Amino acid sequence: MDKLRVCVLGGTGLVGQHMIKMLVEHPWFEIDMITASKKSAGKKYEEACKWLLDGEIPENVREITVVNTDLENISKNKPDFLLSALPSDVAEEIEIKLAKVGHKVVSNSSPMRMDEDIPLLNPEVNANHTELINFQKETRKWEGFIVKAPNCSTTILTLTLKPILDEYGIKAISVVTMQSVSGAGYAGVPSMAIIDNIIPYITKEENKIETETRKVLGKLKENKIKPINAFISATCTRVPVLYGHMEVVSIKTKEECEPKDAIKCMEKFRGKIQKMKLPTCPEKPIIVRKEEDRPQPRLDRYEGKGMSVVVGRIRKCKTMKGIKYIALGNNLIRGAAGVSILIAELLHKTNHI
Amino acid sequence: MDKLRVCVLGGTGLVGQHMIKMLVEHPWFEIDMITASKKSAGKKYEEACKWLLDGEIPENVREITVVNTDLENISKNKPDFLLSALPSDVAEEIEIKLAKVGHKVVSNSSPMRMDEDIPLLNPEVNANHTELINFQKETRKWEGFIVKAPNCSTTILTLTLKPILDEYGIKAISVVTMQSVSGAGYAGVPSMAIIDNIIPYITKEENKIETETRKVLGKLKENKIKPINAFISATCTRVPVLYGHMEVVSIKTKEECEPKDAIKCMEKFRGKIQKMKLPTCPEKPIIVRKEEDRPQPRLDRYEGKGMSVVVGRIRKCKTMKGIKYIALGNNLIRGAAGVSILIAELLHKTNHI
Amino acid sequence: MDKLRVCVLGGTGLVGQHMIKMLVEHPWFEIDMITASKKSAGKKYEEACKWLLDGEIPENVREITVVNTDLENISKNKPDFLLSALPSDVAEEIEIKLAKVGHKVVSNSSPMRMDEDIPLLNPEVNANHTELINFQKETRKWEGFIVKAPNCSTTILTLTLKPILDEYGIKAISVVTMQSVSGAGYAGVPSMAIIDNIIPYITKEENKIETETRKVLGKLKENKIKPINAFISATCTRVPVLYGHMEVVSIKTKEECEPKDAIKCMEKFRGKIQKMKLPTCPEKPIIVRKEEDRPQPRLDRYEGKGMSVVVGRIRKCKTMKGIKYIALGNNLIRGAAGVSILIAELLHKTNHI
Amino acid sequence: MDKLRVCVLGGTGLVGQHMIKMLVEHPWFEIDMITASKKSAGKKYEEACKWLLDGEIPENVREITVVNTDLENISKNKPDFLLSALPSDVAEEIEIKLAKVGHKVVSNSSPMRMDEDIPLLNPEVNANHTELINFQKETRKWEGFIVKAPNCSTTILTLTLKPILDEYGIKAISVVTMQSVSGAGYAGVPSMAIIDNIIPYITKEENKIETETRKVLGKLKENKIKPINAFISATCTRVPVLYGHMEVVSIKTKEECEPKDAIKCMEKFRGKIQKMKLPTCPEKPIIVRKEEDRPQPRLDRYEGKGMSVVVGRIRKCKTMKGIKYIALGNNLIRGAAGVSILIAELLHKTNHI
Repeated sequence: MDKLRVCVLGGTGLVGQHMIKMLVEHPWFEIDMITASKKSAGKKYEEACKWLLDGEIPENVREITVVNTDLENISKNKPDFLLSALPSDVAEEIEIKLAKVGHKVVSNSSPMRMDEDIPLLNPEVNANHTELINFQKETRKWEGFIVKAPNCSTTILTLTLKPILDEYGIKAISVVTMQSVSGAGYAGVPSMAIIDNIIPYITKEENKIETETRKVLGKLKENKIKPINAFISATCTRVPVLYGHMEVVSIKTKEECEPKDAIKCMEKFRGKIQKMKLPTCPEKPIIVRKEEDRPQPRLDRYEGKGMSVVVGRIRKCKTMKGIKYIALGNNLIRGAAGVSILIAELLHKTNHI
Repeated sequence: MDKLRVCVLGGTGLVGQHMIKMLVEHPWFEIDMITASKKSAGKKYEEACKWLLDGEIPENVREITVVNTDLENISKNKPDFLLSALPSDVAEEIEIKLAKVGHKVVSNSSPMRMDEDIPLLNPEVNANHTELINFQKETRKWEGFIVKAPNCSTTILTLTLKPILDEYGIKAISVVTMQSVSGAGYAGVPSMAIIDNIIPYITKEENKIETETRKVLGKLKENKIKPINAFISATCTRVPVLYGHMEVVSIKTKEECEPKDAIKCMEKFRGKIQKMKLPTCPEKPIIVRKEEDRPQPRLDRYEGKGMSVVVGRIRKCKTMKGIKYIALGNNLIRGAAGVSILIAELLHKTNHI
Repeated sequence: MDKLRVCVLGGTGLVGQHMIKMLVEHPWFEIDMITASKKSAGKKYEEACKWLLDGEIPENVREITVVNTDLENISKNKPDFLLSALPSDVAEEIEIKLAKVGHKVVSNSSPMRMDEDIPLLNPEVNANHTELINFQKETRKWEGFIVKAPNCSTTILTLTLKPILDEYGIKAISVVTMQSVSGAGYAGVPSMAIIDNIIPYITKEENKIETETRKVLGKLKENKIKPINAFISATCTRVPVLYGHMEVVSIKTKEECEPKDAIKCMEKFRGKIQKMKLPTCPEKPIIVRKEEDRPQPRLDRYEGKGMSVVVGRIRKCKTMKGIKYIALGNNLIRGAAGVSILIAELLHKTNHI
Repeated sequence: MDKLRVCVLGGTGLVGQHMIKMLVEHPWFEIDMITASKKSAGKKYEEACKWLLDGEIPENVREITVVNTDLENISKNKPDFLLSALPSDVAEEIEIKLAKVGHKVVSNSSPMRMDEDIPLLNPEVNANHTELINFQKETRKWEGFIVKAPNCSTTILTLTLKPILDEYGIKAISVVTMQSVSGAGYAGVPSMAIIDNIIPYITKEENKIETETRKVLGKLKENKIKPINAFISATCTRVPVLYGHMEVVSIKTKEECEPKDAIKCMEKFRGKIQKMKLPTCPEKPIIVRKEEDRPQPRLDRYEGKGMSVVVGRIRKCKTMKGIKYIALGNNLIRGAAGVSILIAELLHKTNHI
């Protein structure tokens, strides 16, 4: 099989680098083009990019010449699809331009996530929302399309909520996050801000979790996603951890759900995509740990190659009259680059790309 | 006025050192004796103690000879009262022995906190619980008595809950803590456990918060403390922060309480002790910050000389149909040494010592 | 006495904030004006400045309107002198303009430090280099003048070298620094770069130490500073510490110097300024600790209100046939804001301002 | 080939765990027995051991019953050889007993390292010192023997010195280390000691480096190791880094050695063992990085599976009239478990075990 040729938009940042690392070894996809801002355009990737991941820059991308993120450059190459890790302030304009003229855009950037006709995909949770794509193309009169990956905390959260939602129903959710510094990009959190400290606020993050979660878990019906009808309350904090977002979750369920029930349904949970043999798909989307002091970011953030979410301390919640637990996911893999590539795999398997 | 002579039980540990530092400059109290375990007994304080606080060991305690924590040694000196920072595995036996023969024990250690006739005091919150002392002495046929300071997280939490409870009533509380490493004592958390990491579990801590909070906020009536009738759910985590416990709190109130109401009642809140001019009493027990990213442990942990609790981000909680906020308190001062000394001041002012 | 009116150039950054904090309580000086870049100009100081120091912004500077750093604005006010914490890329041009027309500039920024007629002052070490000022004014035909504070690591280092140089002579110096993140400014070191890590390189720093040290310790003779004739080798690293630069120093002395000799001459060392009763002058410029594990940044960085350097582990050096030791200084106080103000005090006392 | 059966002495600690992880996948060796102190004896390995490495405890060691570290237990099983990760206070007595009755002991513990007839092996550097083994057995009238791995910092240091010594000769060495907390064992460094701090002292470490380095680099002649005749000066510090020891090294060479010469001889350096195809032998013992800010502990500590040392910033040293550079090695792999296993491989290949 010929590999699909991918163009990575915004390939020099932290999420872009993870995408590139995962693509280099990908059985279905290959990197065709890497774009970045003007100041990087024209440079070789190894010069344009301060490589932040373990090991060296992969051999075969070092010499790729980075191009400016504009329509003309990208269209010339006719990539089979695009992966976008663009910063949120530039993403919307260029992604729309690209989709209009026929490009298939799988985007990790935040604008348009809540647009009604834009699927917000976490493949184990709502693979069927891809059905919106045709409606989107029709309505917008676009040759191509845009699908979005949710915010990193939402991706981790919704994966753990899905099995509970399906078996017991959910009335309310409370989540307190402790998010790693890598979630803000390489230079996002100064060391002076976070050494020996916690910052109890992340711009726009709580709103993203509260709105995106409802959409991701929502039901698609007649080209509309009906968000779940549950109260969600999020408090987001930044902690001195490099990788891995921890979330303390409490759920009020519709049907009574004992901790042992929750453990059981999380452990056996598989999405449809687990049967599709998608290359990036973890065998177990949720790994349940029984030790009283797990999950921990440093110990658990690479489970399932960073694509599994690790859940522990599943207990009764006296306040919510439901259950509570701790979830831990890799914000850059499951929460960003990995989920985007998993979406692309799903779209390929379902003939959208 | 002659100063009251204090014996510090367990004076070489982290809490004991804070007590000693605060006593050295105290206008009412003076250090009469310092006890510790056998291996320290007979040494000078400066030799027995690895001093962990800023600056040098206070001049006038360096030469004090540490004695073994036993009844005979302590009774010989006839101190006016005792401050106990003993480890929980040895505290109960010796504290009971001491109280029996007439000593007045103000203890920060955990055993007996939930005993029905033992006041668990957070002076701004429940100063009137001192009335139990006489009942305790009668019932137990003790010459002296024991009063306890609550667990550090409970002390911080109950201080912020008290004004809400008084004005709006409380039906349910959910709290997620991010506790500093100093809460476990100097050698309690190995650096290999916590650098670039979070540990989502602290032994017995959640149970302490859930039970002690109800007692501290409870009503004293006919020599019984009736705990408040509210569901409490606690999740406790350890974070790579040196000092200061952060707590993410959600409250379901009985009467409707808007964020602005909560701000108002917290800002104006004063305990009875604020009028008594107790030396360790902070002017404002609760300081409300309006910035969206406060409180932060490193920036706010010494507010009110470590005796105030700083609250921020007071917002509506969609899930609890009430309010939520972030609280930050100094676990070693407000949460341990400081509250113990404040209790002693209250007892002195009310003629119990 | 009327206080001298100071204009702080670049007053919103980390060094500028320290200057302002120290000036607010200063007995001789008062803040007359604060400048910053265009984007801050016109704002109140509390709006222009993300305050990074403990406690609140001092009451009486909050409302000061920040002005753009240009000649006209500054000259209008006729300040008695200027303290500059300008970034190095803009400092040179404006500082020269100001000196030309009569302003007296005490600058912490790096350009021109090695200019032959510019005093590079560490007051305990080379107060007499102020004599260059008149020569500078004549040669350059300036109405005012510029004097410079050395690089932070150099200030700390030269203070500890001075007593050894005077009594035993120095042939060679080797220094390995472990510098705190605050040395790079608030946003200088991303947390992703330094958590669980060390960066063994700081741009231009090694060269600064090697050249500035020779000048600071040099002899002034006939309007020329003759640098000391000693080999200097510096290796600079960045470590995950908030404040305080640690330096591992080895010295080859001319005369034999035993560790006990070095201890003695460091402990008794006083500069001329110690007799002048300058307000910011520490009682002991060098504090020698005898414990085997001191100095430590977190424990010792505020000695002498951050103006003393703490030295420990003074031992024989087998390799250099001399002595070696550990030095620790507060990079923002002794190494930047504090030394600049100390220079201004010296200049005032010697009638230069 | 049947695998050699290994007994791991002290297999539950941090070094022991690394040995076990490396043995589980070893092509020549297999774990026959794991010993520990009395409190672990009788338990399954998974119960006796708080597993600290990434991933789970290897499947096939979980169920192994840990035995007490005593002669009788060990002798019963007749292992082919022993790997010792015993704490230094118990190692000497039991290791001698074992060697006496015929056991072959490869030990990472510190006692006896400087004994004249005990080889102190860093295989790329002094594989020929194994010739002492026969002399040792004769002299001591032992059936078995003991060989030692050097202290972690010495192992890393001597590997980088060897090529320089061979080609240019060495007159003096100065080394400043920044050692990770894992070097002190899991609970060795409390988080309260090291967060936002550096400790400029490690018990006995400087003496170990100064004496062991001379022996490892020494020449074997007529059953005597003649240490190299070079001054060595070490200063050791503890830094808030999890894994990886960094060393700032300056060398005075006998023959002139330019940085480019040093780079060349380090890059081409191979020990005899590199030709023997030992399984744990890194392809390149020394990896030279050209970037100005490398090596860094977090980025480089797993080079060559943790068995290579990464060297960077090779420059002239003005003070030592030689060269200086930064070295970084994995203290638990190259510096402890890995080098011990590499020694065992060498001994097997040369028919000592």
